[in-house]
Amino acid sequence: MEQSPIDKLINDISKLPGLGRRSAQRIALFLLKNKDKNLSPLIESLNLSYEKIIECEQCGNIDMKSPCSICSNNSRDNSTICVLEDVSDLWTFEKIGFYRGLYHVLGGSLSAIQGIGTDELKIQKLLKRIENNKIKEIILALSTTMEGQTTSFVIADKLEKIKGLSITRLAQGIPMGGEVHYLDENTLNTAFQSRKKIT
Amino acid sequence: MEQSPIDKLINDISKLPGLGRRSAQRIALFLLKNKDKNLSPLIESLNLSYEKIIECEQCGNIDMKSPCSICSNNSRDNSTICVLEDVSDLWTFEKIGFYRGLYHVLGGSLSAIQGIGTDELKIQKLLKRIENNKIKEIILALSTTMEGQTTSFVIADKLEKIKGLSITRLAQGIPMGGEVHYLDENTLNTAFQSRKKIT
Repeated sequence: MEQSPIDKLINDISKLPGLGRRSAQRIALFLLKNKDKNLSPLIESLNLSYEKIIECEQCGNIDMKSPCSICSNNSRDNSTICVLEDVSDLWTFEKIGFYRGLYHVLGGSLSAIQGIGTDELKIQKLLKRIENNKIKEIILALSTTMEGQTTSFVIADKLEKIKGLSITRLAQGIPMGGEVHYLDENTLNTAFQSRKKIT
Repeated sequence: MEQSPIDKLINDISKLPGLGRRSAQRIALFLLKNKDKNLSPLIESLNLSYEKIIECEQCGNIDMKSPCSICSNNSRDNSTICVLEDVSDLWTFEKIGFYRGLYHVLGGSLSAIQGIGTDELKIQKLLKRIENNKIKEIILALSTTMEGQTTSFVIADKLEKIKGLSITRLAQGIPMGGEVHYLDENTLNTAFQSRKKIT
């Protein structure tokens, strides 16, 4: 039997990340209750995004042009590349705004369970970028999950041979505002081993 | 300054009920990462809904036709109308499936805070429906919130004068699976006052 447009809509909304059937129902009703005020602008916005937004061929960011506005910004330090898992990580960096170099978005991290191998990530592209540009530092800013750390390791391994390239990763330790008695074993252990002298 | 399509998209998604900025960002990225697989079908589904789904002029349900498939179903008991706040309540009734009468969706409940008065709800339409059809019973199935109960009271007051019309409301008491020591004062009091003889 063919699905009704309402069922199809609820179904399609419930496929979005973080939404279940109940919240999809609620959103669908909200949209359908006042189509011209709620549904129309959303359709318009989605259409605009579909037409205008593309992936930057250089760094994997999404933007209205490729190379993206970060890659093509001459005032940024183009000798440093910060390697990230996802565009959302890039947004977090840009929101805080302390970093002035370039980015490289891998598109995830290595995961046997999700079937993400080195070919699924933009690792080859990163190597090419380093080869073709004068890069001095690669900052690995991946998650400290098992997958993120494996990915960092694999990339670091490939980059080690390149002369004059400094490879760094974000510091690991107690997060700001973290209470010691709530820390997990790994974090506490890492923070303890990497303790610094108070000068 | 004009908003970029990405910001606009995140903004529009975050206006949906139950979503904040973080979840809107996550959904936007999910859509934009694979536009043809994720974004296109959603746009299509929303467009289809925009074109096809209308409100039933009789009962306020949403469907592909008006009168809706429930109102125009001859095998249903058209002498009974169950009055509901919202289409989602109707869906719940239909999902369980024990009720075979018609519905009347008010479109909310009276709320001074939200500026919903009797004119904003489909109360006049209900009175007209009762006037023009042979209705024997009106079941008020509104929420047991302050707003829902006020609305029930107002409607019951208007219907009382109609001869031969029976006005009922859903029973109030302990929900199935409810533990007595977790009940709030009002529920326990209502359940106690309305206690029934075990026969």
